[in-house]
Amino acid sequence: MPYTPTTYDPYDFANRRHIGPSPDEMAEMLKAVGVDSLDQLVDQTVPPAIRQQNPLGWVPLAEHELLAKMREVAEKNTVMTSLIGQGYYGTVTPPAIQRNILENPAWYTAYTPYQPEIAQGRLEALLNFQTMVSDLTGLPVANASLLDEATAAAEAMAMAQRVAKSKAGAFFVDRNCHPQTIAVVQTRARPLGIEVQVGDPAKLDPASVFGALFQYPGTYGHVTDFTDVIAGLHEAKAVAIVATDLLALCLLKEPGAMGADIAIGSAQRFGVPLGYGGPHAAFMSCRDAMKRAMPGRIVGVSVDVNGNKAYRLALQTREQHIRREKATSNVCTAQALLAVMASFYAVFHGPVGLRAIAERVHFLTNRLARALKAAGAKVSPATFFDTITVEVGVGQAGILAAARHEGLNFRKIGTDRVGISLDETSDEKVLVRVLRAFGIDGVPPHRAQLGFPEEMLRDSDYLAHPVFHMNRAESEMMRYMRRLSDRDLALDRAMIPLGSCTMKLNAAAEMMPITWPEFSSLHPFAPAEQAAGYAEVIADLEAKLCEITGYDAFSMQPNSGAQGEYAGLLTIEAYHRARGEGHRNICLIPMSAHGTNPASAHMAGMTVVVVNTAPNGDIDLEDFRAKASEAGDNLAACMITYPSTHGVFEETVREVCKITHDFGGQVYIDGANMNALVGLVRPGEIGGDVSHLNLHKTFAIPHGGGGPGMGPIGVRAHLAPYLPGHPETGGEEGPVSAAPYGSASILLISWAYCLMMGGPGLTQATRVAILSANYIAARLAGGYKVLFMGNRGRVAHECILDTRPFADFGITVDDIAKRLMDNGFHAPTMSWPVAGTLMVEPTESETKAELDRFVTAMLAIRDEIRAVEAGEMDRENNPLKRAPHTVEDLVAEWDRPYPREQGCFPPASFRVDKYWPPVGRVDNVYGDRHLVCTCPPLESYADAAE
Amino acid sequence: MPYTPTTYDPYDFANRRHIGPSPDEMAEMLKAVGVDSLDQLVDQTVPPAIRQQNPLGWVPLAEHELLAKMREVAEKNTVMTSLIGQGYYGTVTPPAIQRNILENPAWYTAYTPYQPEIAQGRLEALLNFQTMVSDLTGLPVANASLLDEATAAAEAMAMAQRVAKSKAGAFFVDRNCHPQTIAVVQTRARPLGIEVQVGDPAKLDPASVFGALFQYPGTYGHVTDFTDVIAGLHEAKAVAIVATDLLALCLLKEPGAMGADIAIGSAQRFGVPLGYGGPHAAFMSCRDAMKRAMPGRIVGVSVDVNGNKAYRLALQTREQHIRREKATSNVCTAQALLAVMASFYAVFHGPVGLRAIAERVHFLTNRLARALKAAGAKVSPATFFDTITVEVGVGQAGILAAARHEGLNFRKIGTDRVGISLDETSDEKVLVRVLRAFGIDGVPPHRAQLGFPEEMLRDSDYLAHPVFHMNRAESEMMRYMRRLSDRDLALDRAMIPLGSCTMKLNAAAEMMPITWPEFSSLHPFAPAEQAAGYAEVIADLEAKLCEITGYDAFSMQPNSGAQGEYAGLLTIEAYHRARGEGHRNICLIPMSAHGTNPASAHMAGMTVVVVNTAPNGDIDLEDFRAKASEAGDNLAACMITYPSTHGVFEETVREVCKITHDFGGQVYIDGANMNALVGLVRPGEIGGDVSHLNLHKTFAIPHGGGGPGMGPIGVRAHLAPYLPGHPETGGEEGPVSAAPYGSASILLISWAYCLMMGGPGLTQATRVAILSANYIAARLAGGYKVLFMGNRGRVAHECILDTRPFADFGITVDDIAKRLMDNGFHAPTMSWPVAGTLMVEPTESETKAELDRFVTAMLAIRDEIRAVEAGEMDRENNPLKRAPHTVEDLVAEWDRPYPREQGCFPPASFRVDKYWPPVGRVDNVYGDRHLVCTCPPLESYADAAE
Repeated sequence: MPYTPTTYDPYDFANRRHIGPSPDEMAEMLKAVGVDSLDQLVDQTVPPAIRQQNPLGWVPLAEHELLAKMREVAEKNTVMTSLIGQGYYGTVTPPAIQRNILENPAWYTAYTPYQPEIAQGRLEALLNFQTMVSDLTGLPVANASLLDEATAAAEAMAMAQRVAKSKAGAFFVDRNCHPQTIAVVQTRARPLGIEVQVGDPAKLDPASVFGALFQYPGTYGHVTDFTDVIAGLHEAKAVAIVATDLLALCLLKEPGAMGADIAIGSAQRFGVPLGYGGPHAAFMSCRDAMKRAMPGRIVGVSVDVNGNKAYRLALQTREQHIRREKATSNVCTAQALLAVMASFYAVFHGPVGLRAIAERVHFLTNRLARALKAAGAKVSPATFFDTITVEVGVGQAGILAAARHEGLNFRKIGTDRVGISLDETSDEKVLVRVLRAFGIDGVPPHRAQLGFPEEMLRDSDYLAHPVFHMNRAESEMMRYMRRLSDRDLALDRAMIPLGSCTMKLNAAAEMMPITWPEFSSLHPFAPAEQAAGYAEVIADLEAKLCEITGYDAFSMQPNSGAQGEYAGLLTIEAYHRARGEGHRNICLIPMSAHGTNPASAHMAGMTVVVVNTAPNGDIDLEDFRAKASEAGDNLAACMITYPSTHGVFEETVREVCKITHDFGGQVYIDGANMNALVGLVRPGEIGGDVSHLNLHKTFAIPHGGGGPGMGPIGVRAHLAPYLPGHPETGGEEGPVSAAPYGSASILLISWAYCLMMGGPGLTQATRVAILSANYIAARLAGGYKVLFMGNRGRVAHECILDTRPFADFGITVDDIAKRLMDNGFHAPTMSWPVAGTLMVEPTESETKAELDRFVTAMLAIRDEIRAVEAGEMDRENNPLKRAPHTVEDLVAEWDRPYPREQGCFPPASFRVDKYWPPVGRVDNVYGDRHLVCTCPPLESYADAAE
Repeated sequence: MPYTPTTYDPYDFANRRHIGPSPDEMAEMLKAVGVDSLDQLVDQTVPPAIRQQNPLGWVPLAEHELLAKMREVAEKNTVMTSLIGQGYYGTVTPPAIQRNILENPAWYTAYTPYQPEIAQGRLEALLNFQTMVSDLTGLPVANASLLDEATAAAEAMAMAQRVAKSKAGAFFVDRNCHPQTIAVVQTRARPLGIEVQVGDPAKLDPASVFGALFQYPGTYGHVTDFTDVIAGLHEAKAVAIVATDLLALCLLKEPGAMGADIAIGSAQRFGVPLGYGGPHAAFMSCRDAMKRAMPGRIVGVSVDVNGNKAYRLALQTREQHIRREKATSNVCTAQALLAVMASFYAVFHGPVGLRAIAERVHFLTNRLARALKAAGAKVSPATFFDTITVEVGVGQAGILAAARHEGLNFRKIGTDRVGISLDETSDEKVLVRVLRAFGIDGVPPHRAQLGFPEEMLRDSDYLAHPVFHMNRAESEMMRYMRRLSDRDLALDRAMIPLGSCTMKLNAAAEMMPITWPEFSSLHPFAPAEQAAGYAEVIADLEAKLCEITGYDAFSMQPNSGAQGEYAGLLTIEAYHRARGEGHRNICLIPMSAHGTNPASAHMAGMTVVVVNTAPNGDIDLEDFRAKASEAGDNLAACMITYPSTHGVFEETVREVCKITHDFGGQVYIDGANMNALVGLVRPGEIGGDVSHLNLHKTFAIPHGGGGPGMGPIGVRAHLAPYLPGHPETGGEEGPVSAAPYGSASILLISWAYCLMMGGPGLTQATRVAILSANYIAARLAGGYKVLFMGNRGRVAHECILDTRPFADFGITVDDIAKRLMDNGFHAPTMSWPVAGTLMVEPTESETKAELDRFVTAMLAIRDEIRAVEAGEMDRENNPLKRAPHTVEDLVAEWDRPYPREQGCFPPASFRVDKYWPPVGRVDNVYGDRHLVCTCPPLESYADAAE
């Protein structure tokens, strides 16, 4: 036999690592679907009329080539010691946290903890976060994080407006807030018709506002007691919001003690790397009376069916979640992974350690101030924590240059001052360099001296809960992190078939660069020349996203999908306004839209008009035309999702766009389902004017247990001038995020994904995602009715299973979801977009073997349902109703009418490697009735242990 | 209340991260032990006469300071593209393997899989390794790795001598073996009296040798078929050993097909970074008839008590393990973590991927050879795989310099040749640079052309087992790695209280630098100026180890503790020889010594004389004196362990050393128990002349599931000239390892540990280790007799529990070990140094809470034993005899006389976070009777799945 060389590329990331089904598996899947080829299936699924003509072009890199390229780019960044402050500070990430959380797929690949029984680990970590925020701010209720400090401020403003008894129309903002905070609040206020007064709190007229935002330590360093001004606000029935800093609160009187209603800020400096702007966890806490108005997710404590303590997301039915087109918040995600990191940082250090770190930073700052004053410098403010401002007059450029010569970045303030913020990483060596930049030799001796009045020292205790008093040995910490992650089911153990959430592979190679110091240690406001590597990444990613979407420009600023929607609509609004058509304010949204769509439209100042959905799930074209016509000259935009939220490639999409354009409106195409389009269809070519992309859905950023995410927006050229600006980088429009490029460091993940997949690989991923969904639909068709199959009997990249018929004999979508846990699976999306259904998106990353395991589980569940239907199993006491089954169930007396083995080992579960939910079914109602959103006291732990 | 600053250092790694018990916990522990202070306990434990006078001096670094220092040092290394070959090749570590194995504590903190029920994951991975080696080499039995290729060759020689029917006294070594292989074989041969013939295999006289070692591809590149010469050897009843390369075997005819008896080599290039020499896994495989003579560990397949497939270490009672002072191998460890990595590399790529990689390297090499020949260069050999040699005459220095200018290292051969080995990381760009170094522009086109005769193509299949045909999607791979690690119990879940094995914390900060490219990508034979960072690390670590031990010089070469013993004794032997006292050949070893001691002595050419142990566990001083006197002028050395293997600080240690010295002998102090000495006692000050340190015991290198380890030796000044040399770095004596600094990259871990602990921290660690052992002894004293308490009723850093009394009613040490698994613990060391006992070494890293959990388990087990004793529980059907309990036991019909709950949830087990052994008690005898040492065929998987 003559020698034949192998034709196989072991470094083909797209086809052998990222795309799950092997060639053989794909052949079997095509057969099951009933087509001859992938081309044929795609032709049956994606209407030819909208297919893109030019394929995506760039060639793929192998993993090692990608990492080599990343190293090259990393070296173009310059890591200096940034003392810029302004909401971003150097911090020491404990290596055990970096390794065991940030770099551990068990944590970073998890989904949002909507299924509490399989999310007890991260729910506990987030409860620790809430407890930490609540304790340090002195307010009883905290949420599980928000996107960034500036948006948290804007959310707080909206919340204040919701709860304030004052009917005044203005909102006051302390001029000592960070500039980006002020700017984001202003962006948010304008479309809502809120007048923003920026000024000196001492001059505030409480009667003129429904709420006010103060900050301490202020952006220039001021430490201020707002007790009196808050009392004045309260007399006027207005709401007091305080932006603050968790580290400072380890020493300073807390907002709660000043009477504040709401506190916000960033938990970044609790161990989360700078990352050129993010991702970081912002926090919000409030008085108990306001908790139902609080945006974001709140973890609460409840009990499971056996009465054991169990965590879950609380208050899921509060106002903001159900108002849709009246909502003043579109928050639907958090920064879970970063909140988890920050909470572990607090657990690691405990209150005594945090206080020691705060003192260390403070005393060092005081030492710096003393030295500068001794040398004759004009230093302000008189009371400070970690930040001081130095008047340098015309010497500003010289001082900044001298600092850079020392490897330092100071903050440039106006034309004649510099700001210096010390942080946890500062030490005497840094002090020497700072002083040398001012031409001062030597440093004054250490002194434990306060830079603020003793009355500003906090006199309340914090972090008294035992979790913050664990033994801080690394072995103990490591095991605690492992125990928590073992309670959870993430992508590192099984597929997560969530509709619309695209839980695809987050490859190790994509994750590696984000913890390299060249990327992780850059301050977002560092001089541009120090961030040349990031600039290259952002520019190239933008170019690739333009090629993928057919748009002409991108803004990387929005920190989440919902933020992207909002930013996109603001862009449309600004465009109309600039053309003298500011009156255009109607936004058409189909009934089946994501809940964030109408909320975003409302926040952008638009009036939502809902368009009907036809019985087949498509947009009702006649109704659309009628509503557009009715809106006429007032039509601002339509918001559609493509393929539709029902998972169908609607044939009429071009028509919808044309109608909108005909009436002068702009088309917003929600990018949530972009995983069905990449390489096949460009939204910018089928009529879209703007879209956001969920980089955490389509472009491989992990979900992190509920964030981070990124929602950059692409626009056609005519909208480009109206994209978000930023105080630090310029632009006409206001910013929507605290940092110019949002959570810049995770852009690396999406860039790595694009580079390793190459254009053809991305296209193939889309095609296989469609194949996998159709395979699931074909395999499950015998057991479940698949809704919305499209004109040619095909689904797009997800499929909807109807479980409503089972309601007749008492089986709900919830029962199926919980029973899937026994099989070792996370449930698909429940009851969305249609109540009583399950939406399954398998993605391209799952192997056929894993898809088959899921199919096995679903069909076995169907058999159990049939048994209930046939009266062979009890309606209440059956494996579905009593799911999930825990180890405790196995040990306990078994009085159920079905065998232990059936309960615990359904057909799709691994036996040896069985995943055991740590708790039984969680009681949501109990938890909301007995709301506990901080760590329960020690006794309840003792109870649980008994 | 006036303001009081906190006095707490949050960055005190030693006291808050590494040392487990908190100050409060320590106070309670001291109380339980019955002393007022740690000082008092240490005074009662460590004889004042031997205490060191000068405390260890250097100041500690915080974690972030350590990492900053590591970055500085890293930058002093220069990473070039090393084409030096010679057994070390560039390789692409799949990022998913790096993240999920090498950087994952679930894998790297595991212990050697002696307790198979809680080690099924790594046993499976090691079985995959054995299957891979067996398949690729074409020999049916492979072991689970050896230390490096050169020692594997030496082991093969010793094995050949054991099994050969030929009585010839010489051993032949192919001159085309790597120089370090030849040198290590020579080192090993001399003390054993084996004559080594180095030469051309074509001229070998088979009758003159008991065995021969050939190599292909040869060190200069030759690809040779040894079939005929092996046939000749076999006729002479001699053994044929072939050193080879796994990647080459993906294309080349395998050793088994040539008739070889034994194959050896390195698996480094299967995804394991260069690391400046290691650690890497060497391999060995052999014919079935020889398996009982094979050194090292062998994983085999057996069944558990329920008849399910279960893995465990096989053939644990074969010859080498029981010969002690007659042993010709002292191997007692492997390179498990690296073997696991290599096995996953093969699983990742599968046979088609490996073949494609092999072809890629080979065709590129052929292209290089063509280009060089076309340009008129003299290239050899005529048949090659990845390595060629170029004659460059007097131009050698110029070519090497030109290569360095291109960022390349070529191999310098003699004075007139250079060697070039291409590897997996080579591509056309590298080819261009290589040719440019020769002044050649451009490269010839790719051609799928073989550089060896078609007869040398392998025609047998390999890696046919399904595990190598898994879907290679990263999701699937990641989940497979997770499932395997979840089956195992490592330090990331619970303490591992192993006597003498010091399973302490392996901190994340210590582990991080080893995967930085500046450390991981250096070739061990790269020019010294490229390794300035490593030189600094090694020099500073040596200085610190000298300060710790009181010795004057260190060799970092030995790759394990046993290698250290051997190297230390060789050093003594060389010293005597140099002084004309080569006749000194008697080595006194107490009966209680580690089994490796006598084996090492035998390998160093010494005759072992065993010294009695007194009833209290001490050395019988009178017997020692008598045996020393008897040895007289022939006394070479004594080998003692301090504190003793019984965990006691013998008061007589100085006397033992004095007697030895009086008779002209040298004192070897085994460093296995160094964790009881650091900062308190210097072996070099109490009479030791040489010691090895187990860096993986005392100095924080993780055990990796059974390796890597490092056993550097310290010597007093008079022995320094006789430390191991190396062909690449010089020295009078022969090498004991393939690389000059052994597994250099993991020295970083020990250095990091020393730097972060500081001198005082290391000393405190020792003191707390003693406290923890005495605390365990005090708490368990009511339930178990603690043996060997020393003169003052104290143990050292470990304590021995007597379980022999329980034998009367059928309870064995094994039953206790298995019952500990139900409690979530790994067993202590069993039946060593005294049969029927458990030796517990808690180490300083465990918190009191974890120690208490262990105590709870041990006392609850004691209660169960009492119940058996009292006849309240059945002798056979009780929780001890039926341990460990699996989930399957819970599900199955429960017909046992004790409750499910007692069986599965003993008092120390976590409930929510319960660890479940994946199999029941493993049947060792069955496995050895039905020996299977490669992956069982698919059908048996199907069986197990049913």
